[in-house]
Amino acid sequence: MKWSQAYIPTLRDVPQDAEIPSHQLMLRAGLIQKLASGLYSFLPLGLRVLHKVENIIREELNQRGAQELLMPILQPRQIWEKSGRWDVVGDLAMKTQSREEKEFILGPTHEEIVTDLVSKSLKSYKNLPINLYQIQVKFRDEIRPRFGVMRAKEFVMKDGYSFDASEEGADKNFDLMHDAYNAIFTRCGLNYKSIEADTGVMGGSKSQEFTALADAGEDGVVECDGCGYAANLELAIRKPQELNGNSSDSTELKKVPTPGKKKVKDVTAFFKTEATSLIKTLIYEVDTKPVAVLVRGDQELSEVKLRRVLDATDVVLASEETIQKVTGAPVGFAGPVGLDSIPLVADLSIQGMTGAITGGNAPDSHYQGVDLERDCKIKQYEDLSTVVENDLCVHCGKALKIRRGIEVGHVFKLGTKYSKSLGALFLDEKGKENPAIMGCYGIGVSRTVAAIIEQNFDEGGIVWPMAVAPFQVVITIVNIKNKSQLQAGEKLYKELTDAGYDVLLDDRNERPGPKFKDADLIGIPVRVTIGKHIEEGNVELKKRSESDFSLIPIKDVLKSLV
Amino acid sequence: MKWSQAYIPTLRDVPQDAEIPSHQLMLRAGLIQKLASGLYSFLPLGLRVLHKVENIIREELNQRGAQELLMPILQPRQIWEKSGRWDVVGDLAMKTQSREEKEFILGPTHEEIVTDLVSKSLKSYKNLPINLYQIQVKFRDEIRPRFGVMRAKEFVMKDGYSFDASEEGADKNFDLMHDAYNAIFTRCGLNYKSIEADTGVMGGSKSQEFTALADAGEDGVVECDGCGYAANLELAIRKPQELNGNSSDSTELKKVPTPGKKKVKDVTAFFKTEATSLIKTLIYEVDTKPVAVLVRGDQELSEVKLRRVLDATDVVLASEETIQKVTGAPVGFAGPVGLDSIPLVADLSIQGMTGAITGGNAPDSHYQGVDLERDCKIKQYEDLSTVVENDLCVHCGKALKIRRGIEVGHVFKLGTKYSKSLGALFLDEKGKENPAIMGCYGIGVSRTVAAIIEQNFDEGGIVWPMAVAPFQVVITIVNIKNKSQLQAGEKLYKELTDAGYDVLLDDRNERPGPKFKDADLIGIPVRVTIGKHIEEGNVELKKRSESDFSLIPIKDVLKSLV
Repeated sequence: MKWSQAYIPTLRDVPQDAEIPSHQLMLRAGLIQKLASGLYSFLPLGLRVLHKVENIIREELNQRGAQELLMPILQPRQIWEKSGRWDVVGDLAMKTQSREEKEFILGPTHEEIVTDLVSKSLKSYKNLPINLYQIQVKFRDEIRPRFGVMRAKEFVMKDGYSFDASEEGADKNFDLMHDAYNAIFTRCGLNYKSIEADTGVMGGSKSQEFTALADAGEDGVVECDGCGYAANLELAIRKPQELNGNSSDSTELKKVPTPGKKKVKDVTAFFKTEATSLIKTLIYEVDTKPVAVLVRGDQELSEVKLRRVLDATDVVLASEETIQKVTGAPVGFAGPVGLDSIPLVADLSIQGMTGAITGGNAPDSHYQGVDLERDCKIKQYEDLSTVVENDLCVHCGKALKIRRGIEVGHVFKLGTKYSKSLGALFLDEKGKENPAIMGCYGIGVSRTVAAIIEQNFDEGGIVWPMAVAPFQVVITIVNIKNKSQLQAGEKLYKELTDAGYDVLLDDRNERPGPKFKDADLIGIPVRVTIGKHIEEGNVELKKRSESDFSLIPIKDVLKSLV
Repeated sequence: MKWSQAYIPTLRDVPQDAEIPSHQLMLRAGLIQKLASGLYSFLPLGLRVLHKVENIIREELNQRGAQELLMPILQPRQIWEKSGRWDVVGDLAMKTQSREEKEFILGPTHEEIVTDLVSKSLKSYKNLPINLYQIQVKFRDEIRPRFGVMRAKEFVMKDGYSFDASEEGADKNFDLMHDAYNAIFTRCGLNYKSIEADTGVMGGSKSQEFTALADAGEDGVVECDGCGYAANLELAIRKPQELNGNSSDSTELKKVPTPGKKKVKDVTAFFKTEATSLIKTLIYEVDTKPVAVLVRGDQELSEVKLRRVLDATDVVLASEETIQKVTGAPVGFAGPVGLDSIPLVADLSIQGMTGAITGGNAPDSHYQGVDLERDCKIKQYEDLSTVVENDLCVHCGKALKIRRGIEVGHVFKLGTKYSKSLGALFLDEKGKENPAIMGCYGIGVSRTVAAIIEQNFDEGGIVWPMAVAPFQVVITIVNIKNKSQLQAGEKLYKELTDAGYDVLLDDRNERPGPKFKDADLIGIPVRVTIGKHIEEGNVELKKRSESDFSLIPIKDVLKSLV
């Protein structure tokens, strides 16, 4: 394509609301444009990249027997009622109505629809396995859309679903899709990890996330350099620690007035001690019932772990009213002593703790000298707190590292939740009716584009990997008024295009400086500059990822690309 | 792909609610599946066809300099308010809200969004022309979704928009896109017409529809075999006719009691005359103001012509209350005599009519002997009625034919309505600010798939044109337990696939009869049958469109396809 005719509206300035590099660069390089909060248009250059990623996905999935289809975006309420998700889908789902006053969800995911679809033709184990996927725009009414296409209201997903007659078959499809995802993200040029992930409210068993490592990532990734263990921070586990609560000298239970001291740092300052001597008591509503959760003052509770341990669907911090009602104190003064009306669940790190400081279950008061065994009725001790840097690996004992990542894919063994509720049943070899065993597999396609940029940029702009670059080569004509430069450029353009390369010919009537800057900004992997050396038949060849260029005969450009 | 592993859930029976061949065949052949009224999934076989049509569209548009982008489906209310369409978009648009209680339309079309998008980078005439398109799911809350994907709530459209600095430029883009559409529909194998069409409420000037001729079509197409004139029935014109109202003998104006005679056939029976002696008086609300519209008893009013003639936005039949108020009579007895409170507009076919029968503007009464000149105050005579078969061509005088068609495409010169209201302005060579001149161009992509089927089927199923067939060749192995048949089939499959053909290998453990029937149903253009003749190295080659087959050496199959 000729740049003079291409719609590439680059921006000189970084837009104000763009916080992370990929968001800034996608806007500046004319890959996307903002319509409204969380809503972006993919401009021609951005769409080229999106299509390249989509085609990599298609190739790898088709090769493994998955078949593409396209389901409606509008999903009838009644189907979500069958799966039981209509009531729990919550505010993240966008909804609409038709003129018959029928309600629809704008597809955030398609488990219900694909299961209903398969149920209509599924009869026998002979019809299985089935592995279907689609590439489609999805909707999520994000509380805080941000980071451009990374967390948008409308975004492109690949969602896939497998149906099997046996656990072995389901595992095989799971492994096959895991393998496909490795191939896909590798081809996209991503530095990623496949990590253990939450099975969430989907009710599945196996769950692996594909996370692109990037400072701008919203997810924490726990990694062990020793044995390769990797997991999402929300559920990563570590070696149970020795008790290291700094018990205070006094083990006598004593109530102390602590007016206004609600935060950990205020309480530790008041008692002149460390956060490790404190026990935080968090009142949660677990499937609407209040539960007190205890963690050490220096640690963070993982709600994902809490949900898994309690086998709950919904885990939210209790309201101020509930806290007041349950503890008899305002927020900030809850404690385990005498809190007998609700279950107490505690993190392993405080098991056996004595001489601890806790809330007093009364306004402006704390206990000191708490002995958990002696003074409290704790129902169970569990691993509930989030791993921190240098905790020890449960598998090999080495110190764990914590990095940031962007979730770009997720493979998930779903089980029979949806096939049971939506009737995707088959007759087995003995004539017995069984629900199909399902897996589901997602890739955030538009997010993957952003993740690639997060890993491939410099101060000049994007540095696309060859496989996903919108154009692989840019031919920059230094002076389009010079006939031999222009003609040589057009001839080379034809030669490379005919050889199958995506080429952008910069034939704009601009000075070379801005042309080079634009080519760098939009990140084309190879730049061929046609300037004064063309008189000797030579051109400059420069890789976007390198600072040096070489002078080569124009006739050698094609073979230098291979 | 191997049929044994393909997801092609064919149906034996015609689904009850499928009325037309394409709908029946798309369901039976496993191309689509119904989710709910007006909502269909494209199954793998159907999606292959959809993608082939999409790629033909892309190739033809890209070649002409149009550039693909992807805009959001969610369109903020405020942008539709700027163009003035929020209030007039009506019930056909589906809407949703986000958590901030912001309202959105689910994109039925993207004039507002693309104009807003272009306005953000457009500065000078040097940025023009711009020609952008997208291929995307659109939404319409159809009153009566029917005919499968032909009239669905959710459907795939190609919508394109051009921006130019001059009328000449806009005309050039219009012609270029018209040319692209001819290439696209020709490559899709469609028998279609480019016909003159309504410019509608979009406020444009030039407008051509691309209509695939088919009995199941919802649109009327008027055609002249003499000179090639072709237009949408709604606005087709014909040679002004000689007055042929069968005036009754009496020209004396007389009021006659006609209790309960409301319909044309009852009134003509009562007066023992023909419908051509009657004048129908229809009360319309034209942009909310009542207007009486007169047509001859045997003719139909074209609301499109009425809207154009009166330069109105909105033309709807008046309510019973309005009719009663304006005419002093209930529905069925309106007439032009004495109807002085509202404007009267009449069809050309009644100009000069005398001795006519009209409503009496009183309950249960008619006038006879009406002389329009003498008795009524008609404001204007216009061409308002719909052409009927054998009306004469305005250009060459030959008899016009009326056929049925399916609108598959529309090219439209929009003008400056959107660029003005949404600020897509540019500075011209003299530094003066002007709105860009726009065109818009649509193709119903999923509808095109259905239209192709309407023109290409027989009693056995679909007969795909090669260019859009989901697979071009099916290799049917008569007996998969016969090793030489199976091996020959797999070898040929590899040979044809390597040569770039989309091949389906029917390796199912079925009898040949059902295999042939399935291959015919899904309409694969070429069938290669590998049976007993393989022992002599021969196979049967049969085209889906022909009934005969030939026996050829298996080594000649590839070259016979070219």
